[in-house]
Order: sequence, then structure tokens, then C-alpha cells
Amino acid sequence: MKRILVTGFEPFGGEAINPSLEVLKLLPKKIKDFEVITQQLPVVFGKSLEVLYAAIEKEKPDAVLCVGQAGGRKEITVERVGINVDDARIPDNEDNQPIDEKIFEDGENAYFAKLPIKAMVEAMKRQDIPAMVSNSAGTYVCNHLMYGLLYYINKNNRNLQGGFVHIPFITEQVKDKENVPAMELEDIAKGLELAIGAMAELKEDIKVTGGTIY
Amino acid sequence: MKRILVTGFEPFGGEAINPSLEVLKLLPKKIKDFEVITQQLPVVFGKSLEVLYAAIEKEKPDAVLCVGQAGGRKEITVERVGINVDDARIPDNEDNQPIDEKIFEDGENAYFAKLPIKAMVEAMKRQDIPAMVSNSAGTYVCNHLMYGLLYYINKNNRNLQGGFVHIPFITEQVKDKENVPAMELEDIAKGLELAIGAMAELKEDIKVTGGTIY
Amino acid sequence: MKRILVTGFEPFGGEAINPSLEVLKLLPKKIKDFEVITQQLPVVFGKSLEVLYAAIEKEKPDAVLCVGQAGGRKEITVERVGINVDDARIPDNEDNQPIDEKIFEDGENAYFAKLPIKAMVEAMKRQDIPAMVSNSAGTYVCNHLMYGLLYYINKNNRNLQGGFVHIPFITEQVKDKENVPAMELEDIAKGLELAIGAMAELKEDIKVTGGTIY
Amino acid sequence: MKRILVTGFEPFGGEAINPSLEVLKLLPKKIKDFEVITQQLPVVFGKSLEVLYAAIEKEKPDAVLCVGQAGGRKEITVERVGINVDDARIPDNEDNQPIDEKIFEDGENAYFAKLPIKAMVEAMKRQDIPAMVSNSAGTYVCNHLMYGLLYYINKNNRNLQGGFVHIPFITEQVKDKENVPAMELEDIAKGLELAIGAMAELKEDIKVTGGTIY
Repeated sequence: MKRILVTGFEPFGGEAINPSLEVLKLLPKKIKDFEVITQQLPVVFGKSLEVLYAAIEKEKPDAVLCVGQAGGRKEITVERVGINVDDARIPDNEDNQPIDEKIFEDGENAYFAKLPIKAMVEAMKRQDIPAMVSNSAGTYVCNHLMYGLLYYINKNNRNLQGGFVHIPFITEQVKDKENVPAMELEDIAKGLELAIGAMAELKEDIKVTGGTIY
Repeated sequence: MKRILVTGFEPFGGEAINPSLEVLKLLPKKIKDFEVITQQLPVVFGKSLEVLYAAIEKEKPDAVLCVGQAGGRKEITVERVGINVDDARIPDNEDNQPIDEKIFEDGENAYFAKLPIKAMVEAMKRQDIPAMVSNSAGTYVCNHLMYGLLYYINKNNRNLQGGFVHIPFITEQVKDKENVPAMELEDIAKGLELAIGAMAELKEDIKVTGGTIY
Repeated sequence: MKRILVTGFEPFGGEAINPSLEVLKLLPKKIKDFEVITQQLPVVFGKSLEVLYAAIEKEKPDAVLCVGQAGGRKEITVERVGINVDDARIPDNEDNQPIDEKIFEDGENAYFAKLPIKAMVEAMKRQDIPAMVSNSAGTYVCNHLMYGLLYYINKNNRNLQGGFVHIPFITEQVKDKENVPAMELEDIAKGLELAIGAMAELKEDIKVTGGTIY
Repeated sequence: MKRILVTGFEPFGGEAINPSLEVLKLLPKKIKDFEVITQQLPVVFGKSLEVLYAAIEKEKPDAVLCVGQAGGRKEITVERVGINVDDARIPDNEDNQPIDEKIFEDGENAYFAKLPIKAMVEAMKRQDIPAMVSNSAGTYVCNHLMYGLLYYINKNNRNLQGGFVHIPFITEQVKDKENVPAMELEDIAKGLELAIGAMAELKEDIKVTGGTIY
């Protein structure tokens, strides 16, 4: 049986929970022909990658899907590209705040997700889970992690599938706010299961539009 | 005297005007030690680059700044990176609609702007012009143009400065709408002048944060 | 058989069409036990009410539903209240621009919709049409019309049901824009049909929450 | 010397602080010819009004300005109107959740602010504090308080000035979020001081547009 490693982040920015971690608890143990393994990561430049790489070496998965939160987005977004830059607007959980630094000196400017991103989005939308492709994972720890994963894949193991998904706020995080989009945690878990199902089924992506004008 | 080529787009999507073109008419003929040359480009994959390259060959500028509109954004945004993909949600002005195609087969995955993007943003903000760095120029003709310009620079002329700036709606485009951000055309022109001034003054960027968390 | 008068607005603000008018063409001739009559209204203070009142006198409907567009909203919104003030940010189609003027000197400060607004919203949401209650119809011709309708009902005919619904942009209005919410015209028509169906079925509203914190 | 009573709310919804309270601490003791008195209110239907009324009876102010938070708004908003309805999307701090209940059986449908709302907005904008008129204070405790204040003024003391101002998130509340508008607490305090200054100077409002289309 194939194995997929799914990662979430520890709480961040003074929040008590991190939905990217909570959602992992709701995932089934098996999705299509993937056995699901989960891993918590620190919201720290550098260290997040160390923990990720150690988990990959230990678990030897066939696929890796990293999950983070993008509060304010309305949909589950599958990231298209990670870029070779750290530019932190605020410090991470260990007070690092790199500005315009390369993640890896010998890395390419960017790596595209090794995922069928359009098929993952379509699988979610077909079940009425709001989803879309995103063309930027920012320049903080989420992009750092995505870029670092794809750097690893390109350098060490080109058979590994890998990429990053951003999830919205969950309903309980915004219950006293107006006009802040959110999803039920259960719907996010269902969306991830559908997305992982699409990963299990195909390595080549489907050809449907998912672009943005700007 | 140095020369800067500044480009704008023809009208698009049924609009009568394109502010990215109107704003060029308000630019002074000289900005710091730059003589300003302007050029209109078609909103067409491929052809926009042909016209750009021809203008570069003819005018032999020291710097190129391409301008496009990103209606809905609140600030003038200086783009950080162009990525090697065309993914058109709608057809261009000649009915091309590429999906997930590479712009150049022998290009890198992405190129970073050859601009002091942080200094340009700071120059605008210091004069109260809303401005920020953007980490995605989308996957349509704007990104196509930015990527194609940087591909050209990397292949042919590494001394050339170059990049892309997105501008918001202008006030008259949204006067019968609520909650759609816009700027006065004159303020956008002032912003571009300040940004170009920062390009004239330095090639190395300043080290201030301009990142996003996601 | 009972009769409902449904109104839409002429084009406004330089747009070629007004979806509030287009959507009327898609409504069935009968909805539950309502025969549907439609009427176009001018986007003009005062005159919009004259045409509305004349249509009410001529058609003698049992219910009146006025429809207008609120571009930028994500849902079909049923308005809760009309207030006794005209405050025009831009001129109407005949260049009137009242500022802080009472609509009717002898009117109350506000009138609440004479509609089962919660039931109408629930009827739409049950069929997956995005809908919600709105607590402000603005201070332009839409609020003017709603207030004027309810003033008429309170003065002349307390048996008449009446109120106002705002609809989002339709997809074709925003096809070259990002991040501007829109709905298919057909879905808006379906939503209105469901809302009118709820009006046909009950005069007393249901007791479910539909409030906003601010 | 005249006296103004300015109120803020206790923390709400699991937040540790409420900026509407913090900002009161930054107000000067005197603004123009107003002596400033402050009062904390509970986020509770009914009880908020009891505490407000007791403070008015005790302090006998010439003006009352209530302040609440509307996270997500970009500007300080001066509310135009309070409506006679409680419709709570979530419970208040004592677990009350009224739905579609009148605030006062013998009250009018709505009361307009007894404030020079346009002059207050202009006073803030002239000093570059983002400000605008709002046409809805929602249907929760903020609207409850505003309506209850104006009901009191209309019943008991028509010489009293009174109304409500909503303030945005403060910067530290959103530091780990993207795309959520916020202001510095100091700028909000400055805005309130300017708005109160406008209240001190005139009882009749100025005639400038401040309306919305929807």
C-alpha cells in the first residue's frame, strides 16, 4: 500500500488552536490506496523543514501534502508554486524574521507543485467544497515549507509527489465577526480527503482552466 | 542620459479605456536622470512580447517598466516574481486561451523582478500613495509579459532593469459602485513617477520587510 | 388568483444592461398562487415612485417586490428596513442629487419590510442559492423606492405585502475581473422565484436568526 | 463647562481586550469646551442600557457618544440610524439571544443620530483619519445601545446630543492575518477626539454627501 504524509502546523500568533492541525485528526486512516500518516510542524523557518525532512526519511512516503491556514480566503486553495525567498512581515514562533533571503542558495527561483492541482480542485468542487488554485503561498513559513519540500523532491527523490494546501478559517474562529469567510472543520476535512483521493488516482494533471487574471 | 521604456495595455474586456495606458500620458518626459519613452501593448499572449521586444531593440532603454491593471486591489503593487506558465481564465483580445502552458520551454520556473521593489514601494508610501509588494502577477497576459521581459533580460541583456507594476481601478471606473477600491488617475501617475524615481536612484534594493504570510 | 407586481430598474451608470430588469424576463408567469406582473422603473428620485404608484393603482396587486442591484454583494439580500432619507453620492439618471433630504415629511423615520424576510432567505438557502437578510438598502434610489413603497402601504393599503431585494452582479458583468463576487442570472431568477414562493405561502415570518453584529 | 459621556464595551467573544474601551483611556480630559467622562458597558442586551441610563442620570452630560468595534471595517464609521429590532446571530455575554424582538414596544421604528454626523466625518478626514457615515449599526448590542440611547433622548431629554461610532480592528489584533484592515489605536483615539470636537462646535450638521448607493 502507498503512504501519504500529511502535515499541519502548531498554533501560531497567539491562537489557542491551529485548524491545520485539528483537521488532520478528522482524516480517515486510509484514502483510496493511500495509508495516511500525519505530522505536526513548528511555525519556524528552518526548523519546520528539519522536522519535515526527518519525517520523510523515517516514513518513506510516496506523497507529501503540507497544510497551512490562510485566514480570510473563502476556499481551500491548492498552491501552484513555491518561490525561493523568505520575507517575514512578522517574527515566527522562535522570533526569526528573515527579509528577502534565499531559502536555498543552490535552489531554483521557484518550483511548481508536484501535484495534480487542477484535479484536486475539481474533486473538491464536484462535492460542493469551495476550492481553487492559488498562485502565491506568500513569503512566510508556508511558502518556506512548500519550497523546501519541492527542493528536496527535485534534489533527492523525483518520484515523490508533493505540495501545499491552504485552508480557510473554521467557523468557530470567526463567530463574533462579520464578513470574515470561514468553513466548517468537517467540510475542510472532507475537502482534504477528496483532494488526497485525486492525488491517489493520477500523477498527471487534467487540463482545465484554473488561472487568475492578476 | 538614461532611458526608461514604460508600457501600458490597450483596452480590454469591453472597457472603453485602459487606465494603464491613460496613466502613461500623465508621466513627465523626464524623471530624475531617466528620459521616459512610452509604448502601447496588445492584450494578447505572444504578440504583447513581440511588440515589447521590438520596442526594446529599437529604443535600447536602460530600464523597462510594464504597467497593467489589477482592478480590485487597493494599492499600486510592484510585482516580485513572474512564473513560467500561461493559464487563461478567459480568452485574450485575439481569442487565445492557453491552459497550463510554459511561456518559454528553456526558461526557468520563475524570474524575480530586476527592480528595487521595496525601495519603489517605500518611495510611494512616503508620499502617501498606497503601495505594496505583490507576490503574484496572476497567470494571464500580465504575468506572461513580466516573465517574458525577465526571460529576455536573463538571456540577452543582464544590465537591463525590468519589472511589472499593477495599478488599481481609477475613480471614474467605479463611481456607480460601492466597496470597490480605486485611486485618482493623477495619484497613480504620481505613484509611478515616484517608483521610477527610485529605480533611477538605485539598482540594489533596500532591506525592509514587504512579505505576506499567505 | 393573487397577483404580485415585481419591479426592476432601467440601466444605470453607463452600463448597457441592468440585471434587475433582465432577471424579470426569466421569471415564470405564475409562482405558487401568484400571477406575476413585471414593471420597469427609472433610476430617478421621485419619478421611480410615481411609476411604481401608477402600476400599483392600475394592476391592484396583492404584493409588490422591488428588485435592484447591489454589485459587490455575494448573496441575494432581502432588505429589512427602508429609512426616511435621500443622500445621493452620485446623481441619478436625471441628474438629481439630493443630500440628507426626507423622502416624505409626514413619514416615519423608517418602515420595516412587509415581507416574511427570514422565510424568503431560508427558501433560497435550502436550494443552495446564497441569500441573507440585509439591514441597509443604502440612501440612494433603491432605499428611496423601498421606503416610498412602504410609506404607501402604511398610508393607503395595509393589506399589501411589500419590500425590496438586492441582487449581486451577474457573471458576465465581472468576467474580466478577479475577486468580484457574482451569480449566474439563471440562479438569481431561481432565487427570486423561491423568495416569491415563500411570500405566497405565509404572511407571518418564521423565527430564525438573520441578524448581524455590526 | 459642557460635559460629554463617552462609552466603550467590555471584552467580548473570547478576546482579551476591547479596543472600544482601550481607546477611551487615550482621550484627553477636555476636548474643545467638553469635559470628557468615560464609562464601561457590558455586552448584554438590556443591561447595557441600564448602565448607560444610570450614568446619564448621574453625570447629567450634554452629549453622549457610544463607541463599539466593527472589526473588518476600514474606517471609523459614524452611525446614521438605530432601528427598533434585536436580532442576535450569537449570544451576548450573558447568553441572551433575542430574535426579531422590538427593543421598546412604544418606540419608533428607527431614530436618527442626534449628531452632526457629516461634520464629524469631515473633521476626521481632514486630518487623514479614514472615516465615513454608516447606514447600519447591525442588529446586535451596538444597535440596541444606539437605539436605546436615542429612545431615551426622544422621550426624556431632547436637548441631549447622542449617537454611536464604530471603530476598526487595532493593528495588534490582526498582526498575524493578511487582508484584514486595521488602524493604530492612537489614530483611532485621534479620530474620536476630532469627531467629539466637531460635536462641540455645532449642533446642526453640514450639507455634504455621505450616502451609499446600496
